[in-house]
Formats: sequence, C-alpha cells, structure tokens
Amino acid sequence: MNKVKPSLAKGTRDFGPEEMEIREYVINIFKNIFDLFGFRSIQTPSIENIDTLTGNYGDEGDKLIFRILNSGDFLKKSDENDFKESLKLKSKISSKALRYDLTVPLARFVSMNQEKISIPFKRYQIQPVWRADRPQKGRFREFYQCDVDYIGTNSIVCEAEIIDLVYTLFDKLKIYDIDFKLNNRKILQGIAEVNGLSDNFNELCVLIDKIDKIGLEKFEKELIRKDYNSKTVKSITEIFNFNGSNLEKINFIEKVISSSQLGKDGVKEIKKLMDVNDNFTIDFSLARGLSYYTSSIFEVKSNKSNIGSLCGGGRYDNLTENFGLKDMPGIGISFGIERIFELLKEKKDPVLQDGKNKILLSYLDSRYLPNCLVIAKKLRDEGISVDLISDNLKLKKQLKYANKNNIPFVMIVGEDEIKSNSFTFKSMENGKQVKNSIDEIISTMKSLKSNE
Amino acid sequence: MNKVKPSLAKGTRDFGPEEMEIREYVINIFKNIFDLFGFRSIQTPSIENIDTLTGNYGDEGDKLIFRILNSGDFLKKSDENDFKESLKLKSKISSKALRYDLTVPLARFVSMNQEKISIPFKRYQIQPVWRADRPQKGRFREFYQCDVDYIGTNSIVCEAEIIDLVYTLFDKLKIYDIDFKLNNRKILQGIAEVNGLSDNFNELCVLIDKIDKIGLEKFEKELIRKDYNSKTVKSITEIFNFNGSNLEKINFIEKVISSSQLGKDGVKEIKKLMDVNDNFTIDFSLARGLSYYTSSIFEVKSNKSNIGSLCGGGRYDNLTENFGLKDMPGIGISFGIERIFELLKEKKDPVLQDGKNKILLSYLDSRYLPNCLVIAKKLRDEGISVDLISDNLKLKKQLKYANKNNIPFVMIVGEDEIKSNSFTFKSMENGKQVKNSIDEIISTMKSLKSNE
Repeated sequence: MNKVKPSLAKGTRDFGPEEMEIREYVINIFKNIFDLFGFRSIQTPSIENIDTLTGNYGDEGDKLIFRILNSGDFLKKSDENDFKESLKLKSKISSKALRYDLTVPLARFVSMNQEKISIPFKRYQIQPVWRADRPQKGRFREFYQCDVDYIGTNSIVCEAEIIDLVYTLFDKLKIYDIDFKLNNRKILQGIAEVNGLSDNFNELCVLIDKIDKIGLEKFEKELIRKDYNSKTVKSITEIFNFNGSNLEKINFIEKVISSSQLGKDGVKEIKKLMDVNDNFTIDFSLARGLSYYTSSIFEVKSNKSNIGSLCGGGRYDNLTENFGLKDMPGIGISFGIERIFELLKEKKDPVLQDGKNKILLSYLDSRYLPNCLVIAKKLRDEGISVDLISDNLKLKKQLKYANKNNIPFVMIVGEDEIKSNSFTFKSMENGKQVKNSIDEIISTMKSLKSNE
Repeated sequence: MNKVKPSLAKGTRDFGPEEMEIREYVINIFKNIFDLFGFRSIQTPSIENIDTLTGNYGDEGDKLIFRILNSGDFLKKSDENDFKESLKLKSKISSKALRYDLTVPLARFVSMNQEKISIPFKRYQIQPVWRADRPQKGRFREFYQCDVDYIGTNSIVCEAEIIDLVYTLFDKLKIYDIDFKLNNRKILQGIAEVNGLSDNFNELCVLIDKIDKIGLEKFEKELIRKDYNSKTVKSITEIFNFNGSNLEKINFIEKVISSSQLGKDGVKEIKKLMDVNDNFTIDFSLARGLSYYTSSIFEVKSNKSNIGSLCGGGRYDNLTENFGLKDMPGIGISFGIERIFELLKEKKDPVLQDGKNKILLSYLDSRYLPNCLVIAKKLRDEGISVDLISDNLKLKKQLKYANKNNIPFVMIVGEDEIKSNSFTFKSMENGKQVKNSIDEIISTMKSLKSNE
C-alpha cells in the first residue's frame, strides 16, 4: 500500500458527530411534519441515465452535471478520431451521471410508476444532489435538497395546505418571524400584457426578480435603460410601489390588469386561496426565475436573519411532459435545508446539544469495567444512552472525554459505590454532583427525557 | 425538450413510499440502538479523490470503483497518444470516484481529524456505496452499508459491548434465533503454525471459510487435493469436528496449539471475553476473508432463515496506516442492512404498515374542503397525521385512495356532520364505523399511538 496524504475531494465535506446531530435533528422534524400533512417519502437512485438528466437544466446546467465514466473498457465504442470532438467522446465514454436535482428524478419516477401510485400523489424527498460548480463559501459540490410536491392536481387546497405546513414546520424548528410571500405568474403575465410586453415576459421577470436586491429606484433605471417607454415604466413601477393589505392589493391589481384574461384568472386564484387560507403576503415583485412555473409562486424568508430564502416553489402545468406523460400538473416546494442547518448551527439552540440524555459510566479503576458492563445493560434497558470507555483511563481523562463528546452526565463506579449502591452522579453542565442509587439515576434520567 | 423513454440506470432502484417506510423504520432502530451504546454518527462525502480509494480493495475491487469524469474540459491534460493506454487516459480524465465502502472513508476521516475527535472514537455510519458490479438478483450497483467501529482501543470491553449491541438490536427488529459466532485469527494462525502451515495461512483461511458451505467432508478432500500431508489433514479436521461448550472448546484448542505463542494469545483473549460476556458461540471454522483482521472475528446468522450473514466484523491492528497515521487499532462490525430490509419486507410485520396513525379526511362534497382544512389543523395540532384529497373526488374514490396509501382510518365530513359535530369514523382495516365527535376521534387516535 502506498501512503496517501488524506484529503477531501474539492467542494465536499465530512460531517462529524456534532454536525450530524444538527442535521439529523432537522431532517427528523422535516419528516415528521411532512408525515403529519400526509406526504410520503420516496428515494431515487444517485445515478441516472444521462438522457434522463440532460436537456432539463439549460446549457449551463448541463455543464454542471457530474458524469460517470463507463466501467470496464470505457473506450470500446470510441476511436482516436473522437478525440477531436470532446463532446462526442464524452457521450461515448459516459452514459450515466449523478443526480442534479430532485425534480427530474420525480418526473421520471411518476412516469414509470403511473400504475402503482395514486393521484394526487403527495411525495417528499430528502437526498443529496451533485453539481460540478466552482466551490465557494457556502456552495458545495454535494449538498442536500428537500422537496415536497403534489402531482396531478390543480386544487387551491394544495396552496392552503402548503402554507400551513410551512408555518408548522418553522414553528417546530423555532424559526419565527417568517413571511410567506405569494404571487401568481398569471398576474405577472397580465402586467406584461396590458403594457404590451408579452413578448418580453421572461426578460421582465428577470428584472422584477431583482427588485428585492436592487430596490425600486434602480429597477426603474433598468427599465429605462432597456428602452421601455416612460408610460410603461411609470405604470409598472406604480404596481410595485403599491402598499396595503392583501385585499387592497388584490383589488388594486384587478383594476390595473382588467383587460387581460390571464391576469384576471390569476386574481381569481389568489382570491379563492384567500377564502380558505390568507396566512400569506401578496408580493407582486416575486417572480421566481424558473420558467416552468405557471400559476402560484411563493417564497419564504426570515425577517430576522438575512440568510436569504428559506424555501420557495410554485405551480407547474406539466411535470412529466418530457417523459411523454401528459396532464400531470402539480405544485412543489423546495426547502433550503442546507441553509436551515447553518441557521440552527449559528443559533446554538440547546435542544440541539448532542447526548441530552446520555451518561458516561466512569470507573475509578479499570478492574470495575465488568461491573460497568452490568450497570450499562440495566440503564440501556430503560432506554438511557450509555457510553463507557473501553480502555484504562484516569478519571480526569474520562471526564475530558465526556466534555469532548457533549455527554451531560457522568456516573462514577468504584468498589464502595458498587457495595453500597450509591454512585457519584455528576452533571457536566453545572458541575453539581449527588450520591444516588442506580434506580434514582434511572428516574432522574427518565424525568429529563419526559421534559424534553 | 426531447421526449425521453423513462428508465432506471442499470443496477439501480427507486424506493416508493411502501419501501421507504420499511427502510426508515429499520434505519431508525439502528440509529437508536447505536446511540444507546454511545456511538455517534458521521457522514463522509459520496465523492472521494481517486488516490484515497484505489489500492485498498485489491485489483478486482479497484475495477469496480465508479470513476467520475473530470468536469469542464476533461481532455485538457491528455493527447491522442493517451488513447493507446486506456489506464493512463483514465487517470488523466477522472480524478474522483464514488465511495466504495465506509471503511476507507472512515480511515481518511480519522487521519484528517485527529485533533477534533477523542480516542477511543466510537462512530457509526449508514450511507450508500457504489460498485460497478454486474447486477443480478439481490445485487445492486447502489446499496446501503451500515458500519459501527471503535477506533484507538485494544480493550476486550469492545467485544463485550458489541455482543450486547447485536442482541439488543435484533431483539428490537424482532429477528430472534440468531447466533453470534466468534473466533480469533490468532487461534487460526496457531493452528497453521503447529501444522507447519504458517506460509499457507491465507490459503488455509480461504479453505476454512468454505466449511460452512461445503461441509467438513469436502473440506477434507480439498486439503488432500492441495497436497497437505495426511497427518496435517487429520489434525486440522479434528479441530473442526470438535463439539462442545465454549469452555470445552477453548480448553481443547489450548492444548492443540500449546506450542504456538500467537495461538495462546488468541485463547487468552477469548477467555478474557468469556469472563465478562459469554453470550456467543466459539466457532473455529469462522475465518472471514478480509486479511486485515488480526484478532477477534465474528459473524451473526439467523438460525431460522437462510438469508446468510446478518452482520460480521473483527479487530484490526491499524486502520489508518495507509494515510500515515500509526497506532490506530480498532474493531468494527458491518451490518448487512440491505438483507435486513429484505428479511423484514418478507415478514410483513404489521408494525411496518405505513400510516399506522393516519386519518384521511373525506368529504361528501368538495364544498366542505374548507371545513376539512380547519379540522385537519385541529387534528395535526394533536400530532395526528392527516391526509385529504385536494380535488373533487367521489367518496368511493377517496376510500380507494385511503386503501392504496395504507391509511387505516377515514373520517367523513358533510354538512350534518359539521353541524352536529358527529362524524363517521371508519376503520379501513376491518370496515367498522362509528359516529364520533372530533374530540372523541382525537382521543381514539392518541390511545392507539400510546399503545404502539
């Protein structure tokens, strides 16, 4: 064996025990809430055929797909001439690639499993994706995505449920002060239409998407720079300047775009949603880049932290068109789960402390290790996590181990302790210690657990 | 967009909701038990530098590593001449690869994080690995591994704890009738030594490993075929013919290999373990192929099912040697988690039924959907999972949806029901239905949950 300097592949990360604690805590909350709302988990393979992936993410996206070299004799279909055309060679030597997002695999899954699933199909999926992006602070080549979708339904009940789900979820994560912003692409199309800008719709959306970052003044300048006429500029900026309640906003926009049928449809959809769940803020400047959204779009931000969008999504007309399956409209929401991990890491929420209910069984001498094994079994039978150090370490080093591993309690085992069934039970958090029997320690730990 | 016939990459699988239910149920039990025994979770990236991986799995293993094509201009370091040497070209166009197992990444992790972790380091890891194997029944190119290791300790307490952990785990999974078989490579070396076969040790291990499959008679024939002299053959087969209790076996072997120091060390280790935990069966015919095991080796099989080994592992002298870090002995156990998924799938344990505590809110007419939303919120606030169909479906189709999604209860919402707070509450399992208020339904669901 050759000695190798250990290193991580560019843009990848290890997650040690502390990090995993936070990640699993968050993922469990996500799963529980999705389950509460009747969504069911699926997983798709990390590796997809290249045809499944390419053509969905635009030219730039396609370049970021990690391709897998064919196994065995990877050159068998190629010859030296292919060398001059690297694209051709590429497709001959790699026919599979790593998952780039969770949406395309979902579309493939639904297309392949029409008979097995029931419509509407409500699924969630929490899995890593890979992108050959240039790594930078906060951007990695492997990261988790977390998507929730309804497939095969046009009902506004979906939006109503998604709003509730989002608030329930962030409440559970103790991320308060969030704002659920909602818009409808049909309204944006209406705005374009009444201003004679239907052909510039995508460009307009890109500009509108920037308002949040650059402000209205600069947005106005951008419109002028793009040669929009002054009447149009005035009429458009007026819309984004309008403030008021949801009802005021919807009445205002209804008048502005009254000559656009599409626009009126969008207004109707928002009104219908307001009837059943109005726990959102209408924001006409929300455009969301992805062009496949066709109706409701939404985004959630924290008012307290400038960490950006926590989640976002929207309605699409047909998820599975690319795989030849028609009439599969749906609505999806994607959670920025990596951002949420970071947010909670910064908060240092005590709930996230590892080993909340864990005991380190320490021994005064390693000859008591067999006794420790018996005590460990007793405690574990009661559901209490127990660690003990397998080797002969001085008590001081054992306590250091407890600290390093965030173990909040230490129980010290020696000859007298065993004889008298009276053990020193020490809290590593505040240093306090008492003398307790095994049963007393068990009930202390159990009461801590039930207070969680 | 081009229409694409949807397909899975060779050797990969989708996991739909039913399948995911089993997988997550099992993984949660694993995590809880590992936590109970003080092990902590880590995750390593799916992608590793190629140098980290190759050279660890033998030539055959190296061929099964999935390599990733370099991104961007993947040919920039190559020219047409490389075409004649595909191995050279391969290394120039792919510098990363997919994780092949969890042991090498663990060794890299420990080597890179010596300062952060505390020794002994107790970690578990449950993640997929990828192998470019020829797919066949039960063998996939992407599958989960589940490893538990102690790093940096020689203590026999590890073996004692692992035995307890294994029994606790399979008990929780309701897989009874398991047998924890244990041996020690030093004893096998002793057997080789006293028979003058030290140079043939690896060959001998391979043969011994087969006893389980081919039986002792064929094993004897194999020894003869390999030109072992008749005295040796007799002396070796006698060992594997010996039956008795652990104590009888260990006393027997102690005499047989009394002239081998290494053999005696192995005997001493097993005796020491018997003093603290004798919940295992000594099996001298257990050899375990992997040559890096140096002391205790073990394997667990189900006596009832012939599904093969459920888990296995052993002690190694140095995990991190390859990365230049010395003195990191340890002991590891690897669970055949994919086999365990299959085993439980076959058993159809009712605990595994999805949606055990889930209600489908059905409506007699879709105009009651807004009422359903209010009721759903009430139930979910009490921790009850609720699904409702967003679209206008006839009641019969709603019930069909409940069946297809394994939802055990249906609550029917109509005008009279809302006015009188008395809802039809139907069990989909036995067809029984009662009239209940919302509060009554909540307490029924809660009592079901607490009976779990």
